[in-house]
Amino acid sequence: MLAEKILSGDIKAAAQLMRAIEDEDPGTLRELKGLFPHTGHAHIIGLTGAPGTGKSTLLDCMVHLLRQKGKSVGILAIDPSSPFSGGAILGDRVRMQRHAEDKSVFIKSIATRGHLGGLSRSAFGIVKVLDAMGKDVILVETVGVGQDGVDVIRLAHTTIVVVTADMGDGIQAIKSGILETADIFALNKTDLEGTEASLNGIKMMLSMRQLRKGDWNPPVVQTLAIRGQGVDELLRQAQNHLKFLKTQGLDDMRKQQAFTDFGIYFRKILVEHAQSALETKKEWQTMMDSITKGEIDPYSAAEELVSKIIKSGSSPN
Amino acid sequence: MLAEKILSGDIKAAAQLMRAIEDEDPGTLRELKGLFPHTGHAHIIGLTGAPGTGKSTLLDCMVHLLRQKGKSVGILAIDPSSPFSGGAILGDRVRMQRHAEDKSVFIKSIATRGHLGGLSRSAFGIVKVLDAMGKDVILVETVGVGQDGVDVIRLAHTTIVVVTADMGDGIQAIKSGILETADIFALNKTDLEGTEASLNGIKMMLSMRQLRKGDWNPPVVQTLAIRGQGVDELLRQAQNHLKFLKTQGLDDMRKQQAFTDFGIYFRKILVEHAQSALETKKEWQTMMDSITKGEIDPYSAAEELVSKIIKSGSSPN
Repeated sequence: MLAEKILSGDIKAAAQLMRAIEDEDPGTLRELKGLFPHTGHAHIIGLTGAPGTGKSTLLDCMVHLLRQKGKSVGILAIDPSSPFSGGAILGDRVRMQRHAEDKSVFIKSIATRGHLGGLSRSAFGIVKVLDAMGKDVILVETVGVGQDGVDVIRLAHTTIVVVTADMGDGIQAIKSGILETADIFALNKTDLEGTEASLNGIKMMLSMRQLRKGDWNPPVVQTLAIRGQGVDELLRQAQNHLKFLKTQGLDDMRKQQAFTDFGIYFRKILVEHAQSALETKKEWQTMMDSITKGEIDPYSAAEELVSKIIKSGSSPN
Repeated sequence: MLAEKILSGDIKAAAQLMRAIEDEDPGTLRELKGLFPHTGHAHIIGLTGAPGTGKSTLLDCMVHLLRQKGKSVGILAIDPSSPFSGGAILGDRVRMQRHAEDKSVFIKSIATRGHLGGLSRSAFGIVKVLDAMGKDVILVETVGVGQDGVDVIRLAHTTIVVVTADMGDGIQAIKSGILETADIFALNKTDLEGTEASLNGIKMMLSMRQLRKGDWNPPVVQTLAIRGQGVDELLRQAQNHLKFLKTQGLDDMRKQQAFTDFGIYFRKILVEHAQSALETKKEWQTMMDSITKGEIDPYSAAEELVSKIIKSGSSPN
């Protein structure tokens, strides 16, 4: 069993399980069950922002500093890229190579596949593995736009949103819909003209929100990642946020994450079991044929198949 | 029934159904069934690209030109934004106001909600309504990054990817993982320095692909949307691509879309029915309680509930 090997420190077993999670192998569930009791110790930090804001450089600096502080680090880089763009990715990843020889740093990169929700499921599973590996801090990097962004942010205890001054006072960041998910802002590339204006813009936007007493008020940290400036303060704020969560009941948050895991895997297993039951009975193919011939519309077809596979609510169990 | 009203040209009924689809009202399925036989006529064009590339301005120009040609137009703007960012969205939408009085243009805007896959499901349903309304062309605008982008692109017959020269020779566009989904490139803001270099960059990247005989070779159209330049050529290329699809069997594509609809709604109905059956029997809540108490891990909990609700493959139906 991979889970046992991972818990005893086998890095290759961890890599193997992560690949299996990415491929959505049915066997991974058993492994995740084995790992689950050993999770919940890592501080999961999300790093999100539009392309070009310097997330990867910032990530690299954070890893460097965390290592100096003796923390072990897991990294999940969620890359919405594709084989066609291999070159560009490599450019970013190459910078991370200085950590490649460091056994206390584990880097996993996953990319968008063609199927609905697959990326989020993979991300949740992989973070669980990194957590069970005993990493102190898990950094999740994502472009953070749209549904992916929203889903992945649910993974993190602390979400850092990276913005830059050349984004038109943060307007583009707002458009990407990630501002209000921020626990901390990193205003990166402070050597850019307009940084002061952006800082004021973000602060103004933040002041427009209705904060209740005791709410976390997101700090804005100015960074120049390319020179490592401000990264220490960024980590300090992340640490502050974790302390804040603990006063608010981090346990509640972990419970909530277990519910999220439960919901995600319930849907996944449900769809898989239903489809395989229907395929065994050839009913799936028969319905596809009927759709092709125009005998039934896709919505009625879907309803009919579901009624064939779900035990009715009123029947005795 | 809303479907009948929509088919007889009732615009308010269409708006009402679209809102119901967004809210995932259970009643929408019945309406979509009624509309389905009247769909499949529109040319669905996806317009995608990173924030700041000028998609909205380009969209506005396309609508203007299509109206001049006497085409009716449906627009689905997928906005990954949120209530917090009301101002920024309005800025874009205001420009579209010149079409607001035109009865042959219907504009619908949807935003990312918090739940997995919800946006894609809404988008698929709303495009079906626009199609049944008899729109000649349906324009779907999306930031196109990540899973959302991939899903929404499956909606479109023709996908236009918008890039600009200030994106570092398109590198940022490549990172966003949408380049290889392009049927047509719009290199927008041609007044920017570096446009020629970007043009060469894109062409070089395109030349790296392995095209087979008869494959569509994505053209690169230079546009300056803010002055309306190049938009006519862009629409001509979209028309060319539609002609190409027809020689390749557009019917096959529509069949494929019916399968996609079937799959999406099968999963949606399956999960809804299963959850409601389990809630009726209080088993959902009981399991959540067990997870809270730490009596069961979320993965085992998910498996157990699925086995309670799915008819086994070997049982007689």
